[in-house]
Amino acid sequence: MAQITLHDLAKKLNISVSTVSKALKDYPDVSEKTKKKVLALADKLNFSPNIVASNLRTQHTKIIGVIIPNIVHDFFSKVIGGIIDEAEKNGYIVILLQSNENYELEKKQLNLLIQQQVDGILLSLTVETKKFKHIKRIQQQGIPLVMFDKVTDSIDCSKVVIGDKKSAFDAVSFLIRKGNKRIAFFGGSMVALNFNQRFNGYLEALKEYRVPFDDRLVYMCNKNKEYADGYSAAERLIEDHGVNGVDAVFAATDVIAVGIIKYFNDNKINIPKDIAIFGFGNSFMSSIVSPALSTVDQPGYEMGINAVDILLTEISHKNENENISLRNIIIPTSLKIRHST
Amino acid sequence: MAQITLHDLAKKLNISVSTVSKALKDYPDVSEKTKKKVLALADKLNFSPNIVASNLRTQHTKIIGVIIPNIVHDFFSKVIGGIIDEAEKNGYIVILLQSNENYELEKKQLNLLIQQQVDGILLSLTVETKKFKHIKRIQQQGIPLVMFDKVTDSIDCSKVVIGDKKSAFDAVSFLIRKGNKRIAFFGGSMVALNFNQRFNGYLEALKEYRVPFDDRLVYMCNKNKEYADGYSAAERLIEDHGVNGVDAVFAATDVIAVGIIKYFNDNKINIPKDIAIFGFGNSFMSSIVSPALSTVDQPGYEMGINAVDILLTEISHKNENENISLRNIIIPTSLKIRHST
Repeated sequence: MAQITLHDLAKKLNISVSTVSKALKDYPDVSEKTKKKVLALADKLNFSPNIVASNLRTQHTKIIGVIIPNIVHDFFSKVIGGIIDEAEKNGYIVILLQSNENYELEKKQLNLLIQQQVDGILLSLTVETKKFKHIKRIQQQGIPLVMFDKVTDSIDCSKVVIGDKKSAFDAVSFLIRKGNKRIAFFGGSMVALNFNQRFNGYLEALKEYRVPFDDRLVYMCNKNKEYADGYSAAERLIEDHGVNGVDAVFAATDVIAVGIIKYFNDNKINIPKDIAIFGFGNSFMSSIVSPALSTVDQPGYEMGINAVDILLTEISHKNENENISLRNIIIPTSLKIRHST
Repeated sequence: MAQITLHDLAKKLNISVSTVSKALKDYPDVSEKTKKKVLALADKLNFSPNIVASNLRTQHTKIIGVIIPNIVHDFFSKVIGGIIDEAEKNGYIVILLQSNENYELEKKQLNLLIQQQVDGILLSLTVETKKFKHIKRIQQQGIPLVMFDKVTDSIDCSKVVIGDKKSAFDAVSFLIRKGNKRIAFFGGSMVALNFNQRFNGYLEALKEYRVPFDDRLVYMCNKNKEYADGYSAAERLIEDHGVNGVDAVFAATDVIAVGIIKYFNDNKINIPKDIAIFGFGNSFMSSIVSPALSTVDQPGYEMGINAVDILLTEISHKNENENISLRNIIIPTSLKIRHST
């Protein structure tokens, strides 16, 4: 069946197209009787107004574009859940693209979103993104942009992030107050802002409690193979320092921490008696691993909601030609203390 | 900065709008020299063609609408990853909506997608969906529709599913061949097609190997609290039958299986010596739980790719006014045998 148009309705009711259009929009200058007739027929024929045509007139698409590095990730899927739910509550729908941590794809996808005339963009950067011309271009076009989680200081826009540094500071402070002195840091790429901040939080906690920093206690795990790298770095940790040379490990992600737990379990190293472990993320697996992992709770769903709320505010300010004041939201985290510490 | 239009380019180059448009589309009746001039200026001014306007003319949006019950789910996030990547490779982008297992929301979202004039729809049903008028409406409007994972026999359309019954049959057959006779089934709602099929696969394997079926070995776990229910159902299993009254458990999801493992570990029931456990899903946690869980590998990413490929074929057949032949794809699964069996 072909799509029903305003013209079809008008013809069948023997009234003008503009009367049909006004009736559907509940304009006061159309009689109630006519409105009822139009609505009844529209309902009967399953008429859907052509939003694309109507958007072209109003210049709004009611679409938000979202680019994330990878959706198969417990934290990002929660963020996306929050974004989609909050957008929908406000009458917006979401185009979702994943850059697969590929800078060229990210550039291409931003262009796609511009071409689709999205009303605003939510962006989380790839690990590869070191140049930002493609992002500045969005801003030059006047498209509201909010960055979340993987952000950069090189772009002036509203940002929503987890308080990585403070969360790491809190976690490591907790470990120190429990009597641990020799605390290893297991991190990812220091170029990535999140890991960098988590490392800084670790350093600050050591400083605060006057625990000497030992760079031989810092181990790196590759993105995309964090579990395997957590396992093998734990092996190196024990080779390098022995079980007695380490009191605790602060892992920058839960996946790394779970890799460490696996190595310790396999090698009869008691957690937390021999070595305590603290993770980051409060993913589902952190609660089911044995022993259950103490970790930093990152409220991903709330991050998604916040990002959408800020973006919609900016879109509405833009539409009213009001000034936009940029916002930097740091989503508060909390410590989940379980059996691994 | 305001959006650059074809008119702006034409004015600056002192040529007609239609020449600019043809040059950008590489039409043969525009000279190479003019094309170069137009492209250079378009590039300099960051010109993006207005896709919305151009779609209105061609009647294609190059957008696929996708509705899933819930994105925060290891399997669905993989499916979505496959959908987005495959759509993009073919020049389509994806509007993603999540119904949160809510029938009313699913209805509303299908209307939203119709209004957005998407070229086609991929749909995975909520557990609540028992009426299908809203879905038939899509088909009446001639919008290509492919259902995936959570499907129904009540709608004639192409479908992509995991071979739930055969996978369950294979898993339970494996357990029986290993010498297990008293095999419990831990499932979810039998109304949901997937669980129903997994239960049927379990029954068929028992029949095939002439193992008597005992309905006291069937336990139900609620969706959304599968982990907790897996744990408490395991407790009831042991109360009802004792450790010696059960040889193995086939759990209809990995999360249920992990709940069982937790209860057995907490109560010093040896896996697999006392009781073996088989899961379903091959989620990340199944590989890291201790003991590592034998499970059915569901290739979610491949499901996403297949669903998009079928949908794009139907869209192109529709555009060419060719007949569409419906397809039923069953994505093959495999058994991952680990330490829990």
